[in-house]
Amino acid sequence: DLDLCSQVVAVVSVFFICVSVLSFCLKTHPDMRMPSLCNITVNSSQNSTAWIIVKEKTVPYKAFFYIELVCNAWFTFELAVRSVVSPNLVHFVKSPVNVIDFVATLSFYTDILLQNSVAHKIDQSDILEFFSIIRILRLFKLTRHSPGLKILIHTFKASAKELTLLVFFLVLGIVVFASLVYYAERLQPNPMNNFKSIPEGLWWAIVTMTTVGYGDMVPKTYLGMFVGALCALAGVLTIALPVPVIVSNFSMFYSHTQVRSFLRG
Amino acid sequence: DLDLCSQVVAVVSVFFICVSVLSFCLKTHPDMRMPSLCNITVNSSQNSTAWIIVKEKTVPYKAFFYIELVCNAWFTFELAVRSVVSPNLVHFVKSPVNVIDFVATLSFYTDILLQNSVAHKIDQSDILEFFSIIRILRLFKLTRHSPGLKILIHTFKASAKELTLLVFFLVLGIVVFASLVYYAERLQPNPMNNFKSIPEGLWWAIVTMTTVGYGDMVPKTYLGMFVGALCALAGVLTIALPVPVIVSNFSMFYSHTQVRSFLRG
Amino acid sequence: DLDLCSQVVAVVSVFFICVSVLSFCLKTHPDMRMPSLCNITVNSSQNSTAWIIVKEKTVPYKAFFYIELVCNAWFTFELAVRSVVSPNLVHFVKSPVNVIDFVATLSFYTDILLQNSVAHKIDQSDILEFFSIIRILRLFKLTRHSPGLKILIHTFKASAKELTLLVFFLVLGIVVFASLVYYAERLQPNPMNNFKSIPEGLWWAIVTMTTVGYGDMVPKTYLGMFVGALCALAGVLTIALPVPVIVSNFSMFYSHTQVRSFLRG
Amino acid sequence: DLDLCSQVVAVVSVFFICVSVLSFCLKTHPDMRMPSLCNITVNSSQNSTAWIIVKEKTVPYKAFFYIELVCNAWFTFELAVRSVVSPNLVHFVKSPVNVIDFVATLSFYTDILLQNSVAHKIDQSDILEFFSIIRILRLFKLTRHSPGLKILIHTFKASAKELTLLVFFLVLGIVVFASLVYYAERLQPNPMNNFKSIPEGLWWAIVTMTTVGYGDMVPKTYLGMFVGALCALAGVLTIALPVPVIVSNFSMFYSHTQVRSFLRG
Repeated sequence: DLDLCSQVVAVVSVFFICVSVLSFCLKTHPDMRMPSLCNITVNSSQNSTAWIIVKEKTVPYKAFFYIELVCNAWFTFELAVRSVVSPNLVHFVKSPVNVIDFVATLSFYTDILLQNSVAHKIDQSDILEFFSIIRILRLFKLTRHSPGLKILIHTFKASAKELTLLVFFLVLGIVVFASLVYYAERLQPNPMNNFKSIPEGLWWAIVTMTTVGYGDMVPKTYLGMFVGALCALAGVLTIALPVPVIVSNFSMFYSHTQVRSFLRG
Repeated sequence: DLDLCSQVVAVVSVFFICVSVLSFCLKTHPDMRMPSLCNITVNSSQNSTAWIIVKEKTVPYKAFFYIELVCNAWFTFELAVRSVVSPNLVHFVKSPVNVIDFVATLSFYTDILLQNSVAHKIDQSDILEFFSIIRILRLFKLTRHSPGLKILIHTFKASAKELTLLVFFLVLGIVVFASLVYYAERLQPNPMNNFKSIPEGLWWAIVTMTTVGYGDMVPKTYLGMFVGALCALAGVLTIALPVPVIVSNFSMFYSHTQVRSFLRG
Repeated sequence: DLDLCSQVVAVVSVFFICVSVLSFCLKTHPDMRMPSLCNITVNSSQNSTAWIIVKEKTVPYKAFFYIELVCNAWFTFELAVRSVVSPNLVHFVKSPVNVIDFVATLSFYTDILLQNSVAHKIDQSDILEFFSIIRILRLFKLTRHSPGLKILIHTFKASAKELTLLVFFLVLGIVVFASLVYYAERLQPNPMNNFKSIPEGLWWAIVTMTTVGYGDMVPKTYLGMFVGALCALAGVLTIALPVPVIVSNFSMFYSHTQVRSFLRG
Repeated sequence: DLDLCSQVVAVVSVFFICVSVLSFCLKTHPDMRMPSLCNITVNSSQNSTAWIIVKEKTVPYKAFFYIELVCNAWFTFELAVRSVVSPNLVHFVKSPVNVIDFVATLSFYTDILLQNSVAHKIDQSDILEFFSIIRILRLFKLTRHSPGLKILIHTFKASAKELTLLVFFLVLGIVVFASLVYYAERLQPNPMNNFKSIPEGLWWAIVTMTTVGYGDMVPKTYLGMFVGALCALAGVLTIALPVPVIVSNFSMFYSHTQVRSFLRG
């Protein structure tokens, strides 16, 4: 009976997380927004009052507000119940998933309060909207319900050292290649030069080393192309080196979990 | 004698599948199409009849129809023979390959019937054409004749759990990075912003995480580029993690099949 | 003494191969070409003769001809000596490297003969130039001098079956995804549609599945983007599957060769 | 006490390396530069002196000079102390890290001397700036403080043969595919041809084979696309082949170092 109840809670919780994230994404789409009406009352010369509707900012449809209200009501309820049921409150507070949940829910209520009190100051709502990005982190609440995601988190924790090494290799590579390509492209006269400074070259170097290759910045001279070829090759090798260590950690955790679930089931 | 016969049937079947798919692809090419003539009879003021040819829609050459007719005649014959010869009809009907074959052949005949009866209603033919996409799935009939493709299908079946995990990781990653890049690109004034909404950002995120990198959407601000760099790195790691598990499943099935064919041959 | 001699021949041979290939590449560069002068004698109305220089075609500098002459003289000499020294002439003739060498050298002499006899017929020289591509295959003569390249050739021979499987998977994938994206992009009104026909979609599908991602063709509608995301994912998996089998074959040959060279040295 | 002292030196050294590299990158950014004032004294017709400020070249802010001065003072001091403390001076001089450090520091002082003596000859400063690229190699001084980077260097040394093989395979591949695509794109009339010469095709081939795929050069004809598909496939296989050998070398060194640090710690 308790097991069934916890399963129902899990399904409802996953449902609300998905709805919350979907609403978060969709409400930024132009088709889901309407112009915000800043009704500026103009005292016209005649005794009548004129309204000017300025369409310079859009707000999501009101429906999204109600959807989020329901979702946040559930999350508040869930958080309250969990904190009461939890055997160890200190452990509960320290869990990162609970912290994310608490901050995300808090940000929603702050959002409502601020939007109502300072309805006219539209400039602030932009900053508020930015902080709402923490709500997307609610996706990590799914780790509670997915053993696979738990393994991923464990793998990344266990591979922290190797990941640091990978990031270090990459930073080293992109700094060296960004500098090389910047000077290489300036040696010959090159009117279409994309590499105006080394910081812009860093973006090109990371895009090339991960073999993404957008093509928004491309070397134009022969020397720059040679540096680009070296960069692509170095990227293939640098990324290939620490990956097997991380992969082996993942495989270890993965088979460990499979064996444990086999013994249980 | 029976063995030779079945081999001949296999070769003829593979030939007709290839011809059918080739015809399906080629008939969409502009050089293989002619303007469809909608002969609208206009009662002109004089007693004569004038025709106006409106070239607004193209249809494939008539030759493709005859090629497909022959192919479908063979497929119908093959399906009929197989259903008669089959020892267990229930098993035969439940096989996905046979279902695809049946639906694809049926769609061809429906197509002919509808096109003849409603010749003038060109609007409907567009919908019909879309449903004809099921005919491309006839390629999966080749699994009958290729042991390698059978292994692939088995591998994907056995790795269903890992594939779900991979897709789940990716969905998590693209949602988080699409949201991050959307807000990152809006923080600074950015007139050339490609990221109008989070749903468009999802496309960018999946293209970056698989390291395809078309370059149709590119972050322009430094904060957006930083998010892009993280996204590319996360993609390399996320895709690398479950692949070895799938690969080991494939290797297992592959060597198993090789041993079996060795013992047989 | 014989050992030293064969080493000198090897070094000279590698040198001439490199020079030959370098000359082949460089002579196509605009800076290395001059306009070809077609001196058309015009019988003008007065008794004088007028020349009109038409700069419509460029030819490489004469220096390249002499470089290639020297290279081909060496290759002819080397081929003659090898055929005489060879203990088994049938074996010698059957070797693909010797066939490439013979055809490439022959194509050079044919080129000279034809260019001198039909100097004015410039149209033909274009076809001749195209056949000269066989000379680039002389690079495979380096296999004689590089054990690593020999291993590569052996690996590809031993993995022929797996390579066929990989190509078969890829062909299956690109045909299915090219068809899907073609119809997906036509469902919604899409004025900037890149996918005019399925054959063009094949190029997009192969570029996406190998994660190259040039960006010259990109889906514009949401349905097309969904197909693109599936295509990129399918590509990552399809290429990942047979690669470990090929890689294990390579490792086998590689360690085998290392052991053999260790026992020898 | 000595241990603490060496740790402080290490931290200070890493700090100055990072500051030096950061300054090197940032001083190329347009926001960090000011127009250089070439005060050309013009003897105007009247007895007054006129200055014309020509903004045609930018120089970094003066602050960067002082930052670099402090960094180089520290590097000089560190180098001097190390050379005195070093038990074996010959060994010390032969170490590549010390050579890089010495040359980089020397290049800074030469820079100051030359810029002061030849202040007006702006043309030379461009060449000086180019040689300053050696200062980016100071990043390799971090190898002293990162065991992971030491492993990377050792791996590349041990895999020198395999890396040569990889580079050889790639060079072979790009030369063959660059030639093929050049002639393939010229066979059909192709007004938008990107492949003007084989040397330009080499850039396309390396970008395709490493699956970077910028999209600045793309085949336009069907034959060129077929060559491109082969090139992408060959790249995936060529890069996949020697990587496992390098990776196994890395894993070997990596676990060796981990065991050693475990026995020590």
